[in-house]
Amino acid sequence: MKQLFYPQGIAVAGASRDPSKIGSLWAQSLISAGCKAAVYAINPAGGEIDGRPIYSSLRHTPGPVDLVISCIPREQVMSLLDDCAAKGVIAVYFYTAGFRETGKDEWAGFEHAVVERAKKGGFRIIGPNCFGVYCPEHGIPYGPFQLITAHGSAGLVCQSSGNMGKILEYGLENWVGFSKGVSIGNAADLEAGDFLEYLAADSKTRTIAMYLEGTRNPRGLFDALKMAASRKPVIVWKGGSSSAGARAASSHTGALGAEAGVWSGAVKQAGALEVGNLEELCDTLLLMDKVGPLPGGAGLGAVCGVTDGGGGEAVLISDLCAADGIDVPGLAPGAERELDDLVGRVGSVLCNPVDLSQKQRSAAVLDRVLCLLAEQGDIDMVMVYLNAGVILERFPADVIQSITQVLAGFRRRNGKPLVVVMPPGRAKCREGVHEALSMQGVPVLPGMQRAARALRNLMVYTLRRSA
Amino acid sequence: MKQLFYPQGIAVAGASRDPSKIGSLWAQSLISAGCKAAVYAINPAGGEIDGRPIYSSLRHTPGPVDLVISCIPREQVMSLLDDCAAKGVIAVYFYTAGFRETGKDEWAGFEHAVVERAKKGGFRIIGPNCFGVYCPEHGIPYGPFQLITAHGSAGLVCQSSGNMGKILEYGLENWVGFSKGVSIGNAADLEAGDFLEYLAADSKTRTIAMYLEGTRNPRGLFDALKMAASRKPVIVWKGGSSSAGARAASSHTGALGAEAGVWSGAVKQAGALEVGNLEELCDTLLLMDKVGPLPGGAGLGAVCGVTDGGGGEAVLISDLCAADGIDVPGLAPGAERELDDLVGRVGSVLCNPVDLSQKQRSAAVLDRVLCLLAEQGDIDMVMVYLNAGVILERFPADVIQSITQVLAGFRRRNGKPLVVVMPPGRAKCREGVHEALSMQGVPVLPGMQRAARALRNLMVYTLRRSA
Repeated sequence: MKQLFYPQGIAVAGASRDPSKIGSLWAQSLISAGCKAAVYAINPAGGEIDGRPIYSSLRHTPGPVDLVISCIPREQVMSLLDDCAAKGVIAVYFYTAGFRETGKDEWAGFEHAVVERAKKGGFRIIGPNCFGVYCPEHGIPYGPFQLITAHGSAGLVCQSSGNMGKILEYGLENWVGFSKGVSIGNAADLEAGDFLEYLAADSKTRTIAMYLEGTRNPRGLFDALKMAASRKPVIVWKGGSSSAGARAASSHTGALGAEAGVWSGAVKQAGALEVGNLEELCDTLLLMDKVGPLPGGAGLGAVCGVTDGGGGEAVLISDLCAADGIDVPGLAPGAERELDDLVGRVGSVLCNPVDLSQKQRSAAVLDRVLCLLAEQGDIDMVMVYLNAGVILERFPADVIQSITQVLAGFRRRNGKPLVVVMPPGRAKCREGVHEALSMQGVPVLPGMQRAARALRNLMVYTLRRSA
Repeated sequence: MKQLFYPQGIAVAGASRDPSKIGSLWAQSLISAGCKAAVYAINPAGGEIDGRPIYSSLRHTPGPVDLVISCIPREQVMSLLDDCAAKGVIAVYFYTAGFRETGKDEWAGFEHAVVERAKKGGFRIIGPNCFGVYCPEHGIPYGPFQLITAHGSAGLVCQSSGNMGKILEYGLENWVGFSKGVSIGNAADLEAGDFLEYLAADSKTRTIAMYLEGTRNPRGLFDALKMAASRKPVIVWKGGSSSAGARAASSHTGALGAEAGVWSGAVKQAGALEVGNLEELCDTLLLMDKVGPLPGGAGLGAVCGVTDGGGGEAVLISDLCAADGIDVPGLAPGAERELDDLVGRVGSVLCNPVDLSQKQRSAAVLDRVLCLLAEQGDIDMVMVYLNAGVILERFPADVIQSITQVLAGFRRRNGKPLVVVMPPGRAKCREGVHEALSMQGVPVLPGMQRAARALRNLMVYTLRRSA
């Protein structure tokens, strides 16, 4: 399996002299990403692409080829498979679609025949109907569009290439790096469980996120999930939980889903963390990547009013945390007294969340309030609500910078993790704050509703582990 | 009440020679917004601010003053109130805080005394502990930070100045204009119901959104809500639904809440639309502002795969719409056949949502698919999922432009409203697309989860009205 992610040679079947063809884009994407494997373009018509030869057959490539990307029409894949057997490749992944997911018996049978042919040829199939392997460490970009993130420690298994692309884009936007990933489409041969086993054993992968639509082998998937979840956090999103969603999933990857309740139960029993949609998966992955399971309990301290009135924020945070069952402990009497001196009672809300709006341009007060929360034994993590709208924009640049520094350095000084909630917005300073925090390992979530759900997941995972 | 929003003169008590003082900022904010009222700075120390005189007393101002903004400490307000009575003002709003919300009997009593003094003086109190009146049409900005949106038709009543600021910032980011608004803080005298009655009658206000933490007069509020909701859409968010949230609300505005269930029942019975948090309020307001209640039924047609793989998007949309009870009707057989020709079955999901990823750079195909949906009698509104991430960025500029034009012109050509879901992102083209769509009345929502909830609210409102 390792050779799939670190191949010596990759061949793209269907690359051609026309640079707008999907195969040509794919070859170009590999080359411009600085792929560490040799990249070969394959097309019976031959020719050149960007000054590099196009080989008329896989058999004519000069070096070893471990991985083949099929961008040719389904009608032509059988002869490609024969070439793959002759060349001794390890796996083929099919961007090529039009198999079982068409709902036609004829093409479902063809999919089966493809897998059988590969089995005889001694190699494996990824997909069909997928974007296949992603490995930034080895310079393998995601698909034909030059999408590549930082190398990091999050691993992905996705049954939808589109959703996997969106998770990677979220990673780019939020400074999450990935170890490797795979989009598996119809998963006619290699299945989610196979990749899960590999990622569980992979020392470069610390957290795993999965998007699934169905499986042909529920028992195998459950066992792999259980094994993987015993080693590292595994986040699972199952698409098609509704009947409309299941219909779309069937037409998408030919997936046969199970009852939503059965899935949820199995994921929970396996010790993995279930999420309900794309955003929840991304946000939870961000927290797992930058914070990880908390070492002790799961109490949250919250600070608001950093940029504008904090009273309404305190109510919002309290209600949403309560709705998601997040533990927001009360303040110790000593801390309340100190806050009274530090922030003042008039115009403030001095419980947890702490509204420090009456001293909001003072980075020193912010720092002290954060420390007061971190010093409390039943607070394991601190959250700051930072409204990066019009009013933050009006702050002097040095105030914005010193607030950012306090937040970015908090964990280093206090040992407890910090999370920042910063709604999207066009404020020019927003991007710089987001980057500075992310680079220091502070996850930035785009709204309180999403933050509450992701924090709940982190806390559920923390408490389940320590139970 | 009209003079509150269209005053002839506004005096800011507490403005001073020091431009960093809150009163000075407030006066400056009014002047730079081009306020149509005369603006007077008041401070016993006198002097000048930006070349304008500071009057030593309200009594010495040369012209009529309808509205006074109090930015002085609570200990000094009684003599200001005497001046207000002598000058014949209509209302005073208190940025000044430290009254009932402190939880101290002494200051609750003082709040009561302030209201009594005003009553004797023949004028009204807004707040205390609030930002007061907002009216972009009259050049009255929101608070001391030069926050002003376009003039439009959304009206606001908010018990939190911070949350009201956030709603206005959302409006700025999403091209929602406001007719007028008011932040009422502790609402010791004028209450939410009073303003609601005015906005219900105001011909310039088409939709009303409210944030409330509690009321002293539940019956009056209910009656006002019922009356207002019979005339225009009223969106209500009640903060402090959890016990932690209620504690924060009490410390914020001294609010005494009621049981969450009682509130929900009353809001529903009054015919208003209940939302649960800031984002849901903003998104629902955006849909009400740009689309309004649908004329007929509430069926949704959805299109995905516009920029990247659409299969996973189709599953996500289906699941989230199902979870929120949104009606996503199946396609008529004729439409399915035409899609088969137009998009092709291989690699596509040709139900509703329609995944057109196989023809994704063709604005003509997008246009025709949208029309096919709009032509169907049981589809009342169309939603397009547009992932404005890395891949859209890779599209040629003319393709992005023609896609944007198709979306922006859809309602004009088809008569049915369009909604676009476009997650946040750093793609350079994103902002231009967002602006072009918003300017043509197409609401842009920042994620599928939030979109589903807001669409559900629009549909609930539509169906309740037609029932």
